[in-house]
Amino acid sequence: MMTLKVSIIVGNPKPQSRTLKVAQTLVEKLLEAGSYEVEVVDLAEHVEEIFAWPSERMAALNASVASSDLAVFASPTYKATYTGLLKAFLDRYPASGLAGVTAIPVMTGADQTHSMGPTVNLAPLLVELGATVPGRGFYFITGQMDHLDEIVQAAADTYATNLNRLAKVSNSLRVVASLT
Amino acid sequence: MMTLKVSIIVGNPKPQSRTLKVAQTLVEKLLEAGSYEVEVVDLAEHVEEIFAWPSERMAALNASVASSDLAVFASPTYKATYTGLLKAFLDRYPASGLAGVTAIPVMTGADQTHSMGPTVNLAPLLVELGATVPGRGFYFITGQMDHLDEIVQAAADTYATNLNRLAKVSNSLRVVASLT
Amino acid sequence: MMTLKVSIIVGNPKPQSRTLKVAQTLVEKLLEAGSYEVEVVDLAEHVEEIFAWPSERMAALNASVASSDLAVFASPTYKATYTGLLKAFLDRYPASGLAGVTAIPVMTGADQTHSMGPTVNLAPLLVELGATVPGRGFYFITGQMDHLDEIVQAAADTYATNLNRLAKVSNSLRVVASLT
Amino acid sequence: MMTLKVSIIVGNPKPQSRTLKVAQTLVEKLLEAGSYEVEVVDLAEHVEEIFAWPSERMAALNASVASSDLAVFASPTYKATYTGLLKAFLDRYPASGLAGVTAIPVMTGADQTHSMGPTVNLAPLLVELGATVPGRGFYFITGQMDHLDEIVQAAADTYATNLNRLAKVSNSLRVVASLT
Repeated sequence: MMTLKVSIIVGNPKPQSRTLKVAQTLVEKLLEAGSYEVEVVDLAEHVEEIFAWPSERMAALNASVASSDLAVFASPTYKATYTGLLKAFLDRYPASGLAGVTAIPVMTGADQTHSMGPTVNLAPLLVELGATVPGRGFYFITGQMDHLDEIVQAAADTYATNLNRLAKVSNSLRVVASLT
Repeated sequence: MMTLKVSIIVGNPKPQSRTLKVAQTLVEKLLEAGSYEVEVVDLAEHVEEIFAWPSERMAALNASVASSDLAVFASPTYKATYTGLLKAFLDRYPASGLAGVTAIPVMTGADQTHSMGPTVNLAPLLVELGATVPGRGFYFITGQMDHLDEIVQAAADTYATNLNRLAKVSNSLRVVASLT
Repeated sequence: MMTLKVSIIVGNPKPQSRTLKVAQTLVEKLLEAGSYEVEVVDLAEHVEEIFAWPSERMAALNASVASSDLAVFASPTYKATYTGLLKAFLDRYPASGLAGVTAIPVMTGADQTHSMGPTVNLAPLLVELGATVPGRGFYFITGQMDHLDEIVQAAADTYATNLNRLAKVSNSLRVVASLT
Repeated sequence: MMTLKVSIIVGNPKPQSRTLKVAQTLVEKLLEAGSYEVEVVDLAEHVEEIFAWPSERMAALNASVASSDLAVFASPTYKATYTGLLKAFLDRYPASGLAGVTAIPVMTGADQTHSMGPTVNLAPLLVELGATVPGRGFYFITGQMDHLDEIVQAAADTYATNLNRLAKVSNSLRVVASLT
């Protein structure tokens, strides 16, 4: 089995946030230990360069994420949607800059009010960039950190089920000359 | 190889529409001939029963689509989004009624104005029902029927690439007792 | 003062719903008694003709709503958004068929999970038809019918404030020959 | 007539953009000369402080915009929606930080592909902050700068019509003790 390349991108202006912790837990619950390597991009560490153009450092981060097999994009909920910081990172990509990347949108919030956010706002943004989202976005209420493991496990189980179902469809794909 | 179960659901109030033709072509370009069986649900034939409750006929259609491996949900663009007819069919499902189904949203329209529709409106609706969408929604301009084959082929190639990438991730999934 | 023409359109497949009650209460809290006439369109009474084309009855209902000064579009939450029944009614309009109508989107639901629905789904649909929405969509949790008056009053106060602020802007509009 | 306070906020990382020009033209076409004062916030000039917290300069800009009668929020289209830069500015507001402000969403893009963006993405964001949007978002194709005046005039006419219709509704508002 090849080693899977995984990225976690966190759009919280504060570093080392609970949002990062939620995303890390999701990866651990979803993938078999030892089968993947993970890189964390904590955007809080890059605010001073996020609007610089060109920027070798940002270009390297963008390229690394784009070459991932799986990327978890995690953001606190600001104004019912993802943060400007996360969007500023994604804005650096050209059209279809995340083509083929499996992406899971994660948003954290104080209550259920904005629980549609990851599905109706963050997921379509990632899809617009060419990424593929294997199910609903994952919304986590920060007051439930005590139950982090079980809540994330349930979400991971659903993503795993969805991915297995998608793999079944991939077995019937037409062989197209241009793709071989 | 098991036979894949495929459904095409068309939300055009007029039967045998170009929208149906687009959806059928997409399935043909995406899947290997002989590897699947396809059922077409042309909702124009069911308008008189779509709001009946209960309805054995509608329940059978809902169940058949929910048990599909792949379902293409196709609608003309009305008011920048899917039709009320398609929504009325989907409204008959309970929560997560399409869990695990791989779903491709297709919308047809007169020009590019509403090309975001399948990605920002129809895809989140299918995802809310538990379906998984392997990429952007597909928007087809009806004035381009002469180029149907090549345009749909390009879309099918992208879905195929995405599905293969998703299958790669599925190889690294953690084995969870509750799922075995 | 001219009499205001008000319409309430309810997209619940069941007649005389709580959703209708919520919409009626909103109108009563918002407008001065005696200053308006209200017509209720309970779409549950029209399911058999909603897909008929042409239909004199439906055309008359569409025309009446389009000529309103204020229209409240109310729907239970199905799959995180408005019902197919409401959409089927709106689908009967041509482009910009609600031009100039002040429209308030109302959705009722069981909990906060889908509270973004009226703002991100129903409001853009009404706006696409040319209507103007004076603020957020209003989401009402059906378990709070005991507090209907106070909850709706707060929403009405916000709409009133917004409308007064909009009226202030209208005082500075440029006089354009084509509009006089 | 009181002087109207107007703000133009531009989310283009490049200063003095065509997007700014489009927003300025819209204000000129919409409002009577001499009836208003306008302040321009070109966010390209503030990228270095946009993530600073606290920041007196940013706080002053936020407060000025929030106290406007009319604010035009203008952004180029990045990934089918507003820029991260504009979102980062809006993220600095508390909940309902733009309460009562009449806001017009403007997005510029290369073609019609993303013309739904200002209505389905930027408008709901402004509404979430408490602003009121008097109609569809305005999408301008940058290749049509030669026809800027006439295209913007048509949009301004629609906003003017909508505002006048809203003002008519405001005449029938119930007088509520808590609002007087």
